[in-house]
Amino acid sequence: MTHAEPDLALALDRAHVFHSWSAQGTLSPLAVQTAEGCRVTDTAGRTYLDLSSQLVNTNIGHRHPRVVAAIREQAELLPTVAPAHANLTRGLAARAIVERAPEGMSKVFFTNAGADANENAIRMARLHTGRDKVVSTYRSYHGNTGAAVVATGDWRRVPNEYARGHVHVFGPYLYRSEFWATTPEQEAERALQHLDHVIRAEGPASVAAVLLETVPGTAGVLVPPPGYLAGVREICDRYGAVLVLDEVMAGFGRTGEWFAFDGFDVRPDLITFAKGVNSGYVPAGGVVLSDEIAATFDDRVFPGGLTYSGHPLAMASVVATLEAMADEGVVDNARRIGEDVLGPGLRELTDRHAVVGEVRGLGVFWAVELVRDRATREPVDADAMARVKAGLLRRGVLPFVQDNRVHVVPPCVITPDEVREGLAVLDEVLAEVGPEVVA
Amino acid sequence: MTHAEPDLALALDRAHVFHSWSAQGTLSPLAVQTAEGCRVTDTAGRTYLDLSSQLVNTNIGHRHPRVVAAIREQAELLPTVAPAHANLTRGLAARAIVERAPEGMSKVFFTNAGADANENAIRMARLHTGRDKVVSTYRSYHGNTGAAVVATGDWRRVPNEYARGHVHVFGPYLYRSEFWATTPEQEAERALQHLDHVIRAEGPASVAAVLLETVPGTAGVLVPPPGYLAGVREICDRYGAVLVLDEVMAGFGRTGEWFAFDGFDVRPDLITFAKGVNSGYVPAGGVVLSDEIAATFDDRVFPGGLTYSGHPLAMASVVATLEAMADEGVVDNARRIGEDVLGPGLRELTDRHAVVGEVRGLGVFWAVELVRDRATREPVDADAMARVKAGLLRRGVLPFVQDNRVHVVPPCVITPDEVREGLAVLDEVLAEVGPEVVA
Repeated sequence: MTHAEPDLALALDRAHVFHSWSAQGTLSPLAVQTAEGCRVTDTAGRTYLDLSSQLVNTNIGHRHPRVVAAIREQAELLPTVAPAHANLTRGLAARAIVERAPEGMSKVFFTNAGADANENAIRMARLHTGRDKVVSTYRSYHGNTGAAVVATGDWRRVPNEYARGHVHVFGPYLYRSEFWATTPEQEAERALQHLDHVIRAEGPASVAAVLLETVPGTAGVLVPPPGYLAGVREICDRYGAVLVLDEVMAGFGRTGEWFAFDGFDVRPDLITFAKGVNSGYVPAGGVVLSDEIAATFDDRVFPGGLTYSGHPLAMASVVATLEAMADEGVVDNARRIGEDVLGPGLRELTDRHAVVGEVRGLGVFWAVELVRDRATREPVDADAMARVKAGLLRRGVLPFVQDNRVHVVPPCVITPDEVREGLAVLDEVLAEVGPEVVA
Repeated sequence: MTHAEPDLALALDRAHVFHSWSAQGTLSPLAVQTAEGCRVTDTAGRTYLDLSSQLVNTNIGHRHPRVVAAIREQAELLPTVAPAHANLTRGLAARAIVERAPEGMSKVFFTNAGADANENAIRMARLHTGRDKVVSTYRSYHGNTGAAVVATGDWRRVPNEYARGHVHVFGPYLYRSEFWATTPEQEAERALQHLDHVIRAEGPASVAAVLLETVPGTAGVLVPPPGYLAGVREICDRYGAVLVLDEVMAGFGRTGEWFAFDGFDVRPDLITFAKGVNSGYVPAGGVVLSDEIAATFDDRVFPGGLTYSGHPLAMASVVATLEAMADEGVVDNARRIGEDVLGPGLRELTDRHAVVGEVRGLGVFWAVELVRDRATREPVDADAMARVKAGLLRRGVLPFVQDNRVHVVPPCVITPDEVREGLAVLDEVLAEVGPEVVA
């Protein structure tokens, strides 16, 4: 293990690396050197508790020895192969994934990440139905490529809107209801009516798919109210639309289930995944297909593909990740942490700090929404969030901050003690910043 | 190294793996177990000479020990990190790439592969110019995502045409000229006039970019005639359009140059790359930006990004690949092989077999076009190509077959003896199949 010079890492970054979703002149990145479990170390040797899982992807924690070993062994055996050839590691990875999917979903199309998983799911749905439109929600993120970024509902769609055939609706979000609802039941019912009316207004015969994150993530960990997803399934069945559930962020342990939809009364036609499937140790994603949709392409060419589909190095990391997660009870750990430690701990913060408007989540997938005023629910401003973020970093906690929210999304392997450590720091920071920003 | 059971690899593939660009019911893949240098071994222990470089990506050959070691070491140090953080390996990879790019191009935006490299280059060009349309050629391939697949000109575009703002033109291809040209000079001149007239007809103020593969690859290794690319540069300058050169297949040694455009009189504004940059050992791609376009996003948010942008494992493989290629003279080897052995050898096959209509290429990037009739240039049919492919495989050569062409695209590290071995097999197969398919 070489020890990096901190200045060189930052200097090269500023000179040569163009960053995502940023004005390049305003960046001051943390220079990460190494990481282990739930801890990240920068080039100056300082260690942080990772409550971000980077981009909510290192579900199994950093540098898991079994996954690292699998990558090493596959690199020595066969790092890359054309997707047209068969490869045992790829077959084992596909089997490991479909074993965790519902009955009647037995094939996987592998991609490089979540965006092209959604791209290909949209393509499958369009060709399977012979229809054009894709309905997704404004509060969503589905990736940054031409179709995926237009399926995305949030602001990242707007400057990239060069594709057609995308329709956006509002999904359920009781804390900021678009439907004047006051109970979860009402929110679900009204969100379903809204979806139904939009599809009817667009023309059901033009709608190929409804594409939803099972639990919208970056949009604010918007856990769907009871009945909503089952209702969406009914609407899709009624109109012959394909239901695509985007499990890129929510899947593979994040919610305390293998697939987030396992916790709800719904079964998708297509599942898209990435991130947690191998904790992002090697870029990988994919689509799990229902047998009915897969059969559409038995005699008909599927017009999509990519050089690194089913990449052996990625596949080896998938197999090792899923085996290690099963053997070590990682998914159960995520559920128990959410139920017993993280959920109760965050709710306690709500009681202690007026700046906390709502906490919501499940498993290791939580959002803490900060507001200037609990009555009006007015979000705190960007400056307040910058202070929260700086306060957390200064105290050695790496957060995931989005809009007026702190997302508490640690690796699924986090221990109760580590959770308590993170909660104590968050408590301190809210005590520091909160009183100054509350109206 | 475990030895795989051949039946399991194929059985799992057929049960669970959904393949690119295929009708799923018609597949009979080769089950690849391992590979080294220019040789690939299947699960039955049979070895093949790889004249495909898989999908024209293993430029440095299979299992290069320095690249494998770099992957192993990075996996042990830090497999993954969020793109927002700085990381030394990423900075080193970006520097290694821009050192090989023209002056005044000092930043790299990393992606997962070539498709999203083109997606992001298109996005940069649109936002930099404030214009919408992207001009590319019919005979091209730029990737399979929503915008990239519509930039693509070949048939793979048509069933995926859900994006707007894409215009297609014909590029130069003297053997099947769209311009009734009889000399390379005439082909270049007329292709430029055609491009100019289409841009004028579309409205120059609406054209954000001209996107071209420097040497269109899958379309048939269409080496541009002298003056064409310089003329495209002039047209882009005249109308204020961004010139994007897609070096995904042609770059990093394939043509005997670091960038294929180094062999031509042209300088792009954006370069897209993938494949050869790390031989595909880990999924990676990216965009090299001119300083002028990069500056557009100094104060303005670049609205694109991805979880695995600048992924450490991929970056380590880039650094090791480029260092090893430089130290071992891999790019020079590709050029010399093309000039001294592969080019002359393929031209000899043209003399010996009436079924060969034309061979063309440079470096280790060649196409052998098979025709029923040299006068009419009528392509041989799919059945003839299937027999050519089967004949090559039976004799232990792994080909890249596309339409009526055999693409001879071995790793850049191929030796003269290996080239002669491949040429001898191709000679045998053409002698066997040729006389039966020539009119």
